[in-house]
Amino acid sequence: MRPSGRAFDQMRDVTLEMGVAPQAEGSCLVAFGRTRVLCTASVETTLPPWRRNQGMGWVTAEYGMLPRATGSRTRREATAGKQSGRTQEIQRLIGRSLRAVVDMGALGENQIILDCDVLEADGGTRTAAITGAFVAMSEAIGWMKARSLLKGNPIRDHVAAVSCGIYRGTPVLDLDYLEDSEAETDANFVLTGAGKFVEIQGTAEGEAFSAEELNDLIALAQKGIGDLVARQRSVLEAI
Amino acid sequence: MRPSGRAFDQMRDVTLEMGVAPQAEGSCLVAFGRTRVLCTASVETTLPPWRRNQGMGWVTAEYGMLPRATGSRTRREATAGKQSGRTQEIQRLIGRSLRAVVDMGALGENQIILDCDVLEADGGTRTAAITGAFVAMSEAIGWMKARSLLKGNPIRDHVAAVSCGIYRGTPVLDLDYLEDSEAETDANFVLTGAGKFVEIQGTAEGEAFSAEELNDLIALAQKGIGDLVARQRSVLEAI
Amino acid sequence: MRPSGRAFDQMRDVTLEMGVAPQAEGSCLVAFGRTRVLCTASVETTLPPWRRNQGMGWVTAEYGMLPRATGSRTRREATAGKQSGRTQEIQRLIGRSLRAVVDMGALGENQIILDCDVLEADGGTRTAAITGAFVAMSEAIGWMKARSLLKGNPIRDHVAAVSCGIYRGTPVLDLDYLEDSEAETDANFVLTGAGKFVEIQGTAEGEAFSAEELNDLIALAQKGIGDLVARQRSVLEAI
Amino acid sequence: MRPSGRAFDQMRDVTLEMGVAPQAEGSCLVAFGRTRVLCTASVETTLPPWRRNQGMGWVTAEYGMLPRATGSRTRREATAGKQSGRTQEIQRLIGRSLRAVVDMGALGENQIILDCDVLEADGGTRTAAITGAFVAMSEAIGWMKARSLLKGNPIRDHVAAVSCGIYRGTPVLDLDYLEDSEAETDANFVLTGAGKFVEIQGTAEGEAFSAEELNDLIALAQKGIGDLVARQRSVLEAI
Amino acid sequence: MRPSGRAFDQMRDVTLEMGVAPQAEGSCLVAFGRTRVLCTASVETTLPPWRRNQGMGWVTAEYGMLPRATGSRTRREATAGKQSGRTQEIQRLIGRSLRAVVDMGALGENQIILDCDVLEADGGTRTAAITGAFVAMSEAIGWMKARSLLKGNPIRDHVAAVSCGIYRGTPVLDLDYLEDSEAETDANFVLTGAGKFVEIQGTAEGEAFSAEELNDLIALAQKGIGDLVARQRSVLEAI
Amino acid sequence: MRPSGRAFDQMRDVTLEMGVAPQAEGSCLVAFGRTRVLCTASVETTLPPWRRNQGMGWVTAEYGMLPRATGSRTRREATAGKQSGRTQEIQRLIGRSLRAVVDMGALGENQIILDCDVLEADGGTRTAAITGAFVAMSEAIGWMKARSLLKGNPIRDHVAAVSCGIYRGTPVLDLDYLEDSEAETDANFVLTGAGKFVEIQGTAEGEAFSAEELNDLIALAQKGIGDLVARQRSVLEAI
Repeated sequence: MRPSGRAFDQMRDVTLEMGVAPQAEGSCLVAFGRTRVLCTASVETTLPPWRRNQGMGWVTAEYGMLPRATGSRTRREATAGKQSGRTQEIQRLIGRSLRAVVDMGALGENQIILDCDVLEADGGTRTAAITGAFVAMSEAIGWMKARSLLKGNPIRDHVAAVSCGIYRGTPVLDLDYLEDSEAETDANFVLTGAGKFVEIQGTAEGEAFSAEELNDLIALAQKGIGDLVARQRSVLEAI
Repeated sequence: MRPSGRAFDQMRDVTLEMGVAPQAEGSCLVAFGRTRVLCTASVETTLPPWRRNQGMGWVTAEYGMLPRATGSRTRREATAGKQSGRTQEIQRLIGRSLRAVVDMGALGENQIILDCDVLEADGGTRTAAITGAFVAMSEAIGWMKARSLLKGNPIRDHVAAVSCGIYRGTPVLDLDYLEDSEAETDANFVLTGAGKFVEIQGTAEGEAFSAEELNDLIALAQKGIGDLVARQRSVLEAI
Repeated sequence: MRPSGRAFDQMRDVTLEMGVAPQAEGSCLVAFGRTRVLCTASVETTLPPWRRNQGMGWVTAEYGMLPRATGSRTRREATAGKQSGRTQEIQRLIGRSLRAVVDMGALGENQIILDCDVLEADGGTRTAAITGAFVAMSEAIGWMKARSLLKGNPIRDHVAAVSCGIYRGTPVLDLDYLEDSEAETDANFVLTGAGKFVEIQGTAEGEAFSAEELNDLIALAQKGIGDLVARQRSVLEAI
Repeated sequence: MRPSGRAFDQMRDVTLEMGVAPQAEGSCLVAFGRTRVLCTASVETTLPPWRRNQGMGWVTAEYGMLPRATGSRTRREATAGKQSGRTQEIQRLIGRSLRAVVDMGALGENQIILDCDVLEADGGTRTAAITGAFVAMSEAIGWMKARSLLKGNPIRDHVAAVSCGIYRGTPVLDLDYLEDSEAETDANFVLTGAGKFVEIQGTAEGEAFSAEELNDLIALAQKGIGDLVARQRSVLEAI
Repeated sequence: MRPSGRAFDQMRDVTLEMGVAPQAEGSCLVAFGRTRVLCTASVETTLPPWRRNQGMGWVTAEYGMLPRATGSRTRREATAGKQSGRTQEIQRLIGRSLRAVVDMGALGENQIILDCDVLEADGGTRTAAITGAFVAMSEAIGWMKARSLLKGNPIRDHVAAVSCGIYRGTPVLDLDYLEDSEAETDANFVLTGAGKFVEIQGTAEGEAFSAEELNDLIALAQKGIGDLVARQRSVLEAI
Repeated sequence: MRPSGRAFDQMRDVTLEMGVAPQAEGSCLVAFGRTRVLCTASVETTLPPWRRNQGMGWVTAEYGMLPRATGSRTRREATAGKQSGRTQEIQRLIGRSLRAVVDMGALGENQIILDCDVLEADGGTRTAAITGAFVAMSEAIGWMKARSLLKGNPIRDHVAAVSCGIYRGTPVLDLDYLEDSEAETDANFVLTGAGKFVEIQGTAEGEAFSAEELNDLIALAQKGIGDLVARQRSVLEAI
């Protein structure tokens, strides 16, 4: 039995609210249950130095967490003077995931920066961030289209993410914080709208896991991400 | 004529929403027009080393701005590796302002940390932050009272803040971003519920200002802060 | 009664010694009683990147304190690896104050950097620094004039600063360290030679202060700064 | 056809040389083809603060690369002033992988620090590091046993790692640098001696990959890690 | 012919002014010609952690240079965020030199920190700093004696320093900036009052130097340091 | 009697192994007894900004130590976030030493970076590094010659280094760690193939040393460096 009473293959309530940051070219407030992440997409004409003059764009991400997104206060990284290893690992993952579905040539020499800031954390912040950042990025690309800043449609497919894990011996979908802190295995999956894998990261927190267990987690992820992509499509129909 | 069409002594629409960060002991989402700041109050039993074993508490503040709170993206301070001089100046101001109305003995050996994170910036973020942080702190103190963690009532008075300035030759109340970027003089006022001064910071951005102009700004601030304190009282009646 | 025996409206002995750093384009050793600050002005042809190619100059300031300017040793900021929030706040104030009286167009595309290093600290280091930096800057501008590096006279007026405060219930002029550590209210004023305000910063350290008290402090500051400007004129007549 | 002429399921020549750092409690120079990593294990009686007084030990890892381990010189991280995100991600992976096979209670309140420094890099440095670090750790644990510093045998199983990827459409085992730079998909696997998964990290560098391709990579990894564990057993028989 | 017209074995005018920093336990403003260094000695009862509870004291030094001690402005190290390699090298040298003549047991568990801040730089700042720091330290030890804080006399001998070099083919004593920038060889010598060597650092800036040239430099240093020690004795007689 | 049983003027076994880092333009693994340093030489066409467009090259060095090169683990400088003062002092010394024998005009606008990483430390790492770096640099210059990248032969002479010290009252050659930790005086000498001095650094760790003792150390260094240069010549004959 899961602490939340959910079925093993049931996601939390998911909402995707577009346009919440009126000064940004794209934005999305994503909620996976109590986990809420504010994703903004900024369009810039400046590329990283190593990317310039190649006729191609770039997509990158930064991740942060408000100090009181968590049950006890987390030290502010700006005060600590650096981003933690965990933060860097997450923002590198978000960036890679989104780049996997973008045609950099069609983007032209533009950069899209995705800022994912966690307002409240209850497990799964990185997967919520990827799912919401795709919506924010799509809104920003719509903004660019409307201004004829693109050479073509740079979005090749959807991308969304979910975590799965083995909780008290059972593979379950979309871990919340209570489950996450206790899970024997924790895995994050990033898949495209077509159901192909962009990233798979599975870690045994306690016991190592078997090939069969891995297959169960994969099946759960495919189901969950199917749902997430449907929600993305629904919210993006407006633009 | 002000860009927003407001009268010279008219504040923007102000809202104070308490309890928005459910994991924090106190929280308040404050809006001064489009400027929105999420203030959380964290109660900790750890004091800064120099404050320990004196039978007294401490109140401090940290300030941040989401990268896309602004019209063009601002670099994340956690990436830059340090807080800017501006950020430090603001968070020191917020901390001083709140300490001015707290009885540290009644607080006992507890610390309240106020995190003020700007979700959207349209001028006056520091004054909104002070006004909202007072509400978050009050909620946290209510939380402490309910758990009998206090020796008495540590809140001696309200505190709120507003900016005034000289815009195209006219003293005006509560500058928004458009006015702020063009104002000849910009001043921030922090006053108590009793109408006394906790802090006054006036700066000539263009021409130096006269003693008469300073007096006009003071009168506007007294009016505006009177309104803000009334709103604080109204939202805090619930607790 | 003040610890020093001074009248409530009496400044400490003030000296301004020009030309003390022979390798600098301008310099001034300023003393407000025991407080001594070495101010140098450096003329550079390099502007900050955001200021280039606009036909205008820039004036900026840096502030430091020798480790043993104080009664007990203060940690060296170069060792700590960063400037404290207090240092940054002060150097930003010094820079703003001096820019308020400089015609940036007449300065041409040149930068003047004012370094204010406290040799001995006994209260009022920032106000002494502003007062002395004006003299150093004026000497440097004289140096530029003599080399025909200017388009006109960039100095539009004098600028000087003084602190006032409420000490044991009485408003007093030019706080020394003993008074400063005990004052209920501490305020810094920066005024032009014409008696207009460039900056006012008042902070209640203990009790909040009333509008009447603020007016008393303003009157004291006007008197003190009048004296300081007279001294500046006297020392600058030489050039 | 692979650039090295290897079969798709053929590893590079692997060597594990124990005892190469005579001042360390354990050490292993591991080579996967031209990739060479010097792994040392240091036994310390100091634990990280959050781990103290729990009757349990800790295992952690740090990773570095000599500036000229690569074809063109890489900037030294000590000069840059921080470890890159990539370095932190790798050293966190190494630490997690080794902790997965250690019984922390049997280790007692001791810490083992694994330093993995790449002398030459030709792809697969992180998987070589994990494989070699296990040998270094085992030697260090032998050193502890000989001094009766342990409560029992803390090593529960072997752990080793290998990378697989999809190179020009074909799943291949143990990517070298030439393959790695061109692979569409790159995956790292960490398995125990019993063939269970400790970590799986797969990333689509180009096209997203299918579930079938993922299964092929898993099968290759199982084969390769079987070989690596056999080599570990062989070199560790000596102690 | 030297630029200053000095004979090859002639030092610049040297002055040692004690007591110039009234808040410090010891201080000395030392001048070697135009080079001026303000040395302060701070007595602290806190020792570095590794030195505690051994019944012995410690002496250490920090070195800094005001931004405009030089002909063109030098960047402030507190702004740069770290001390340069040169600064660290110099302050380590100053600390070692003074420790060489101190009996750490007689000092008791006290620390003396010597801050050497260059007000004006014209070559030889490190040798002037050592020479002046000895006087500041001696004054501080007198201060400790007067308060019975010592177990005995911790000063075993004088220590002073001078630079020598080969300028246009000729060995000369006490290089000034003009000579230093052009010298083929630059050497710093630290000797005790008894004429023994504490430190010798010779560097060929251009051509490597011969054993004979080294001997000439040694002889010059012995003469110069003899003079410096005599001056130290003279100024210290007062205490 | 020396701990190792060596005669007072006997060096440890020295080996110089060229070409050990196949991806570098030059490399040398140098051993002075148990002390082993991996030196690589990287040829770059980028010069430091201040050196550009002068028709001359540059030679610089960086130094590092693997965490477990020492008897107890040393903290990794990349983790600490900066190089220690000791590291900077050593790498500046290595760079100066090698520049002393290079004709920068003949090198053309190229830079050679020498990375000296200590694999095992048993005293004398900096002198071993200089001696080995010369071989690595020579191999790199051979590589440049073979590609006609040079204007002439930039190597004007050999350079090598050794430490000497006064151990239990006796001057001895090439201190190992046991001697070094106990020596009263420790001196490093850098000499050219022609026997001239590039650098001499002598420090009294305990008692100050006399001019006679200094002469003894110089004589030992001349003998030892003669041997080292002969070995360099022998290994370099191959290229």
